[in-house]
Amino acid sequence: MKKTFFALTFATIALPALATTPSALVLQTDFSLKDGAVSAMQGVAFGVDSELKMFNLTHEIEPYNIWEASYRLYQTATYWPQGTVFVSVVDPGVGTERKSVVLKTKTGHYFVTPDNGTLTLVAEHLGIDALREIDEKTNRLKGSEKSYTFHGRDVYAYTGARLAAGKISFDQVGPLLEPKVEVIEYQQSTLEKDTLKGNIPVLDIQYGNIWTNINDTLLEKSAIKKGDHVCVKITEKTEKGLKTRYSGKMPYVSSFGDVQEGKPLMYLNSLLNVSFALNMDSFANKYKIKSGAEWSVSVKSCNKK
Amino acid sequence: MKKTFFALTFATIALPALATTPSALVLQTDFSLKDGAVSAMQGVAFGVDSELKMFNLTHEIEPYNIWEASYRLYQTATYWPQGTVFVSVVDPGVGTERKSVVLKTKTGHYFVTPDNGTLTLVAEHLGIDALREIDEKTNRLKGSEKSYTFHGRDVYAYTGARLAAGKISFDQVGPLLEPKVEVIEYQQSTLEKDTLKGNIPVLDIQYGNIWTNINDTLLEKSAIKKGDHVCVKITEKTEKGLKTRYSGKMPYVSSFGDVQEGKPLMYLNSLLNVSFALNMDSFANKYKIKSGAEWSVSVKSCNKK
Amino acid sequence: MKKTFFALTFATIALPALATTPSALVLQTDFSLKDGAVSAMQGVAFGVDSELKMFNLTHEIEPYNIWEASYRLYQTATYWPQGTVFVSVVDPGVGTERKSVVLKTKTGHYFVTPDNGTLTLVAEHLGIDALREIDEKTNRLKGSEKSYTFHGRDVYAYTGARLAAGKISFDQVGPLLEPKVEVIEYQQSTLEKDTLKGNIPVLDIQYGNIWTNINDTLLEKSAIKKGDHVCVKITEKTEKGLKTRYSGKMPYVSSFGDVQEGKPLMYLNSLLNVSFALNMDSFANKYKIKSGAEWSVSVKSCNKK
Repeated sequence: MKKTFFALTFATIALPALATTPSALVLQTDFSLKDGAVSAMQGVAFGVDSELKMFNLTHEIEPYNIWEASYRLYQTATYWPQGTVFVSVVDPGVGTERKSVVLKTKTGHYFVTPDNGTLTLVAEHLGIDALREIDEKTNRLKGSEKSYTFHGRDVYAYTGARLAAGKISFDQVGPLLEPKVEVIEYQQSTLEKDTLKGNIPVLDIQYGNIWTNINDTLLEKSAIKKGDHVCVKITEKTEKGLKTRYSGKMPYVSSFGDVQEGKPLMYLNSLLNVSFALNMDSFANKYKIKSGAEWSVSVKSCNKK
Repeated sequence: MKKTFFALTFATIALPALATTPSALVLQTDFSLKDGAVSAMQGVAFGVDSELKMFNLTHEIEPYNIWEASYRLYQTATYWPQGTVFVSVVDPGVGTERKSVVLKTKTGHYFVTPDNGTLTLVAEHLGIDALREIDEKTNRLKGSEKSYTFHGRDVYAYTGARLAAGKISFDQVGPLLEPKVEVIEYQQSTLEKDTLKGNIPVLDIQYGNIWTNINDTLLEKSAIKKGDHVCVKITEKTEKGLKTRYSGKMPYVSSFGDVQEGKPLMYLNSLLNVSFALNMDSFANKYKIKSGAEWSVSVKSCNKK
Repeated sequence: MKKTFFALTFATIALPALATTPSALVLQTDFSLKDGAVSAMQGVAFGVDSELKMFNLTHEIEPYNIWEASYRLYQTATYWPQGTVFVSVVDPGVGTERKSVVLKTKTGHYFVTPDNGTLTLVAEHLGIDALREIDEKTNRLKGSEKSYTFHGRDVYAYTGARLAAGKISFDQVGPLLEPKVEVIEYQQSTLEKDTLKGNIPVLDIQYGNIWTNINDTLLEKSAIKKGDHVCVKITEKTEKGLKTRYSGKMPYVSSFGDVQEGKPLMYLNSLLNVSFALNMDSFANKYKIKSGAEWSVSVKSCNKK
């Protein structure tokens, strides 16, 4: 068995509101920690308020992978208290027309980011309370106008730090926008006749498990019961059309220990979503499965075969 | 020369007792920092107490490698003050019968972890003061009972944070257990006639140096003197029996600079344990040496050959 | 376009002096975060003062690469407030004659490090205010004298923490030295006739962009104008002499979006230095370009060819 039991469904958990405690600043980028970019961001934030509580979500987002950035925010945000300020910088369009925004969700979390799809999943799942465009005239590191800008440092980290530290209010970020963010289209989960369809939003990357967006409620509407064998097909949409990347049979069980080492299983992860794994091995590596909008799955009961 | 001078023998150093300062929370997992798992743990801990001092030991333990988890705790713990709370989640048996425990060592450090062998080396070297099983009825993130559990977040990080923050006392963790932890068997070091035997508990991974558990006291009882040439054999226990992975001759010297670049040497690391290295190169990579209970070494003087 | 807009030229920005706020301790090593070495350093620093604000610059400096250590400090330091204490441990000469020092720059930043070339770029760009040798009689973790020393932990982290926490003043570090640090020689940028020459101090490693030390002022003195095509040659000094590693033509443009995906471009990064990239691809990987004193570039206008 493995440590795939991760995020809870947001509907089922009531995290305590801790609005009166100091807000944390949580940073996410695709910069890696190999050079000094993240440290420069932290230095700017520390300069705003030396008492700020700073944390890293991850800086190992695959370069330019906005979908992954969106998923990591969604996966993590509600385990942080109300008022937490997330700064996410995955920005293949730096220098183009995308807006720099701060989203306040209905759960009271803040997200400082380019509006390029990064907000897709937190907007959908946590709800949009209000969206503001960052006014760079006031919300920008002093002195940085004179040069090309490293937005992650000069605008996003700086503004996020000032918001978390209470140096500016949300109103002072800049003008209100329509409560609508840029979204990445992806396959919603469905039940068509006896077949469940969905996509692979993300891998459980360290262990190589395959997570889908098919949740327990939809699974219960299908004919599939615990103990059944299921036929699973995984496809990738490529420039040359749909390609089948995996096709196989496996039991639907409670946990990894219910199958032998190396054998496949279907289980519910702690998002209560349908997932696939190999016990003590990497499903993703073995079958070269990746994640993203272009990856889809179908599942149906196949006990009789 | 290299930066292998690492931990001191715990017997020879008296670190100051700092029991009145706030306790640090130090996290270790095999999750990597690539996804949001560690951030969710930190968010839960921050929700317990926003003033908590949180640090990462490492999150790059090889997946499922309980031995390595045990070694990293042992290698690091005594450089942190009394009262420090370590949370270690390397848990291949999640969902099975292993207990969730908190160990208090005789040095006054706390270890929150599944009792699956992770405590082997800190129990042996720092001593067991008391062991308690975590009572999940009281020590579990509110709301998390409704779903599958991510123990690292919902139980271990939550309980570790509450203990470090003083929200619960050690007594309130749960019932006392027998002062005995699950241990991983490994080859103790011995001197047989003129041959030193031991195992390779861990590599100095960044530089590829080989560390053994043969300490300076045992070395002094042998016939080997500084300046001698020694014959070294490294073996791995495999399913097909013992395999020799290295056999060679090298000088026993004080430091890396005493041999030419690329040449092998035996030296004492700062645990004062017998170690092997190549000056400015990786012994482990060159000879494909790994570490763990299945790796053993023998060393004897061979000046006359 | 990419996130290469990084450090500003130090001349053009005036960061606020924040000398009254608590000083941060910023750690840099080539240890990686895979083992417990960095955590032991943090534990020692936490033992000095549990209220210390500790951050990591990077621990993924290429092992023994003093040049890279020097560059990361230079790239990051001025984004941290005055009084910030940097500890950098990249120390291939541990155990040899190199001195352990603390540099105070004219900008009011402190650097605790072996004096082995690590200070090359901060000394040159931030200026030497004073240099002191660490007196290990007083500035060394108690108890650590009894064993071999892990200088990064027992001397550098310990001294850096005490300085940042105000437990010792700069004067108490140890005796003043001549205001002169060990430097690594590298090719300064020049304009010879119509050809710009310089070196590659560092790569924009996550994206594979090539950064040079040829700045905008020197570029303006050349015949090259925005929109021109330039002929670029990159050479490596090897033991067998100079080797050409890249030779090609590309436009000098404002940003990545000005060329098609996969195409090369010359642009100014936010250090306002001449840089080369492939839009949405890695120039460094494609042409196997690295950085360091041995890498040089030449650039000239070649519109007519």
